[in-house]
Amino acid sequence: MTTPEPKPVFTVDLEPTGRRARVPAGTSLLDAARAAGVDIVASCSGLGVCGTCALRVVSGMVTPLNSAEQDALSTAEIDQGLRLACQTAVLGDVRVDIPASSLVRGQRLQIEGWQVEATLQPAVEIVEIACPPPNLQDLRADIARVNDVLAAQGKPALQADASQLDDLSALLRREGWQARLACFSGGRLAAALPAGSAVLGAAMDLGTTKLAIYLLDLTTGGTLAAVGVMNPQIAYGEDVISRISYANRGREQRRQLQTLLVGAVNQAVQSECARLGLDPAQIVEYVAVGNTAIHHLFCGLEVEQLGRAPYVALADHALDFRAAELGLVGSPGARVYLPPNIAGYVGADHFSALAASQEHLAQSPALLVDIGTNTEISLHVDGLWYSCSCASGPAFEGAHIQDGMRAAPGAIEKVEFTGDVLRLHTIGGQPPVGICGSGVLHAVAELLDHERIDNRGVFTPRLPGGFQLAAAEQSGHGRAIVLTRKDINEIQLAKAAIRGGIRTLCQRAGIPETAIRSFVVAGAFGTHLDLASAVRIGMFPPLPLEAFHQVGNAAGVGARLMLTSQSVRQAAERLAWMSNYIELTVAPEFTGFYENSIYFPRD
Amino acid sequence: MTTPEPKPVFTVDLEPTGRRARVPAGTSLLDAARAAGVDIVASCSGLGVCGTCALRVVSGMVTPLNSAEQDALSTAEIDQGLRLACQTAVLGDVRVDIPASSLVRGQRLQIEGWQVEATLQPAVEIVEIACPPPNLQDLRADIARVNDVLAAQGKPALQADASQLDDLSALLRREGWQARLACFSGGRLAAALPAGSAVLGAAMDLGTTKLAIYLLDLTTGGTLAAVGVMNPQIAYGEDVISRISYANRGREQRRQLQTLLVGAVNQAVQSECARLGLDPAQIVEYVAVGNTAIHHLFCGLEVEQLGRAPYVALADHALDFRAAELGLVGSPGARVYLPPNIAGYVGADHFSALAASQEHLAQSPALLVDIGTNTEISLHVDGLWYSCSCASGPAFEGAHIQDGMRAAPGAIEKVEFTGDVLRLHTIGGQPPVGICGSGVLHAVAELLDHERIDNRGVFTPRLPGGFQLAAAEQSGHGRAIVLTRKDINEIQLAKAAIRGGIRTLCQRAGIPETAIRSFVVAGAFGTHLDLASAVRIGMFPPLPLEAFHQVGNAAGVGARLMLTSQSVRQAAERLAWMSNYIELTVAPEFTGFYENSIYFPRD
Repeated sequence: MTTPEPKPVFTVDLEPTGRRARVPAGTSLLDAARAAGVDIVASCSGLGVCGTCALRVVSGMVTPLNSAEQDALSTAEIDQGLRLACQTAVLGDVRVDIPASSLVRGQRLQIEGWQVEATLQPAVEIVEIACPPPNLQDLRADIARVNDVLAAQGKPALQADASQLDDLSALLRREGWQARLACFSGGRLAAALPAGSAVLGAAMDLGTTKLAIYLLDLTTGGTLAAVGVMNPQIAYGEDVISRISYANRGREQRRQLQTLLVGAVNQAVQSECARLGLDPAQIVEYVAVGNTAIHHLFCGLEVEQLGRAPYVALADHALDFRAAELGLVGSPGARVYLPPNIAGYVGADHFSALAASQEHLAQSPALLVDIGTNTEISLHVDGLWYSCSCASGPAFEGAHIQDGMRAAPGAIEKVEFTGDVLRLHTIGGQPPVGICGSGVLHAVAELLDHERIDNRGVFTPRLPGGFQLAAAEQSGHGRAIVLTRKDINEIQLAKAAIRGGIRTLCQRAGIPETAIRSFVVAGAFGTHLDLASAVRIGMFPPLPLEAFHQVGNAAGVGARLMLTSQSVRQAAERLAWMSNYIELTVAPEFTGFYENSIYFPRD
Repeated sequence: MTTPEPKPVFTVDLEPTGRRARVPAGTSLLDAARAAGVDIVASCSGLGVCGTCALRVVSGMVTPLNSAEQDALSTAEIDQGLRLACQTAVLGDVRVDIPASSLVRGQRLQIEGWQVEATLQPAVEIVEIACPPPNLQDLRADIARVNDVLAAQGKPALQADASQLDDLSALLRREGWQARLACFSGGRLAAALPAGSAVLGAAMDLGTTKLAIYLLDLTTGGTLAAVGVMNPQIAYGEDVISRISYANRGREQRRQLQTLLVGAVNQAVQSECARLGLDPAQIVEYVAVGNTAIHHLFCGLEVEQLGRAPYVALADHALDFRAAELGLVGSPGARVYLPPNIAGYVGADHFSALAASQEHLAQSPALLVDIGTNTEISLHVDGLWYSCSCASGPAFEGAHIQDGMRAAPGAIEKVEFTGDVLRLHTIGGQPPVGICGSGVLHAVAELLDHERIDNRGVFTPRLPGGFQLAAAEQSGHGRAIVLTRKDINEIQLAKAAIRGGIRTLCQRAGIPETAIRSFVVAGAFGTHLDLASAVRIGMFPPLPLEAFHQVGNAAGVGARLMLTSQSVRQAAERLAWMSNYIELTVAPEFTGFYENSIYFPRD
């Protein structure tokens, strides 16, 4: 038995970017550059005909000049040692020099197949420095050496804590007077790392239940890790109202909720860094989005005023704190950026979702709805924005439903009548143990279609014990799974709140609901939602199905985009600033719309 | 026995400045305004003839219109209720309105009779805010209310830590939505205080032996308290070299020296605040000056490289840290500013002294010398600046002198021959117990003048046991006080180092020493120095005595000026930037100048 010999791996140093790739023998220089996050122009996509990927091999062994290169390059260029990156393969450690004309200006980034593109432009600028060491003829202070190098590159002098200057001096003296610096605008030092170190950022969608945490390489914009963990605050209340009550008991309790949340983030970040062989001290910035209550608790801000009328936030503008103040791991100069929220219940996560969905929302009229215990809705009409938040309750998360459960294995997610025969689809195809939010929605739509309930939500014929979805002997736990009249009523109240909010926004904007051209459904529940069922039960207006866009965790995507792109950050801040917030509890038209939405539409 | 009835005290409210004075009955309104730090134009110095101090008494009892006022004011002005501040005395609680024409634009400040004047312009701007409270029609966040008020006044939005925003929200809700804010440039929040609170700053001259700490009111520029305390680091070495050695033992030891120093500052500040009924949380900025080693230890910076060739600082530019990072008490947003130092041994205290002595140094050529264990010298010639530091040793502080002592009661400070009779002057007129630095200097000059020593420093006639200044039975401790050949030798080495430094700077600047028009002597020792003696022994060049200016603790004055005036700060930074530092240990001409300065001049 023989196993194929593993290919030798070589390093490719890409000047003048200072980046390095480690690739197997035979890799093209174009692919090596891409692996290192260096974007080389290659108009013909590597066919060797356009000549736009020309670069110079400074040293090291590569494949010889081929005929495609002889055709694409002039004799003068060949004499200067130019090669086509797409046609030249690595046969040893190589150093190349990429002419400015072959480098893509303003690198582009794309996150997980999303259509949203934004120029890679994180909040930090990354600078490699090398200083001459001191001697009796050159008595400049350590930091003066650094500032002089920065000034020569037209960059401002460093602004830093005393401990950061102390660490930088030690680093320079240890590492031969070289370092990689990451600086925020104005020269504020984010991190001083050994030359060539990766510079990291973390984006976070802080949900009431779940935390989505992404680790990104800020030099390439690539996502290195994505993890979801439970929000440990859940021990102090399933919803934000209970957590606000707990925090109101005193400063100690509020502090405890902050510590729990920050601790969970730190643990996730540290374990991902360890897995990737990275140091959390390489993290220079966090972007965190979440609803206003979680946002305030994360920052250690008072939440008491969020829990009582008139429900105002302590701060609703974009915030920028020292990560260390909140207790987050990272470089000593790391910061945390929190996009704006508006009013008590339209949070930064909503603006993050809006920022991530700009393409769909550029049309007019366009609407984005993010369904949760609180459902946030924004409507765009001709450059004007309207937002509201409705108390839709936890029914869609399976709570307050007799046999409700989260979307976990064994949850009924779909219910189909074939004649009188009921077919159940469960997550993972396992025997049913309960029904999740999208399953309830689907079941109600199906029961309506098959006239097992009327438009008031009453079973026809009446079923005092409820509608049995699965008998005890079919289920995974030996108990029958039943949909009750009360369950249906919970769904009615929830969907009426959402539809009432949509109608109120349309009324304020002066458009009929049916004018909406693009209807974006964001959030985890929205992703698994059966759109036809949502329209059938009257939760969403009767739009053609192609008007709907299910965009998944847009808040998490938005957070990553804001981490890697200053322009997305500015877009979110602009959106928040422009948005007209409508407080439904004092909107006179809302009550009527809500009441009119409780019954199901007659088909 | 009757004691005179104390005069009743009344308040004078000075609109539109918002300031208030409390003054005894009969005080003129001009003096009341001055007491509150409000500068009213008074061209005739209060003689009542120029009319420039006109103001309007809005309410309260004052002395009636006098004839001087009738002459100086027009009938129309009298009809409008105008009065002359210098002629009108307070007879009750009074409120006055000062027309813009009577207010000095850009208030001036003066510190303890110094000639230096600078416009009062601290680093913080002080803003009074009042916001409308939230209601269901106005759901702006707490901090948005503040930012909107600031924006209406053309000021930037607040930049603050999360805890500062939290505290500000609590303050607003507790104090009826009013507050006094102190903000650094760019809206960085220094402190949020109840409306009308005093805003404080602290200036510090951190000496190797002694700390001078001043508490200032930044709204008036006035010094509220001045205290001197010992530098507790002295337990780890009398000079900076011993402290550097101690700090080099490890991070723990270095940290310990920082904690000791910061602790002493905090203790002084807290006890002065308590005495004045103020809260240390009202302190928004510190300005600290000191030699480079103390400066680094205070900031927690590495000092190892200061203790070995080529003796470079870790940081020599102006620094600006969070006061909390260094452990200083103050408002949560308080900062500490440290002016620049250059090279290892010309510290921020020297630039502070230069900044305080600008008037004397504006002439050319001008020189400033600050005598200590290390003597720092700066020379100004036609806009060019040259600086050096000479190791003059501790002889002038009484160390290394057989009967030497600090300038304390019982120290001989002056020695006079009348014929053959020796007269001693001691500090406090007490029986002599030793001789202080200026006493030694004076004694050597007197012995030279009376040919008891020759120009090589040898006693004539030879006195193997030294020259007895006081017999055992005359002294305060029953032992004879003697000046030895070795003592004289110590003085020779010290003064040669200083004179060698002066000569080297003049050589570099291309001027003869005798061209110096203004010779500034700074520092505690320099204040008590007998100038004629210093010239006689050749420590200073033979200039006319009127060329010398003994300016006392110019470093402390400079620190206070930098605390209250941004322009003085900029002047210090410019000076440091322009200065040519000459490292005497590698200056080829220095050795010759030094050796030639060891002998005393022949009279």
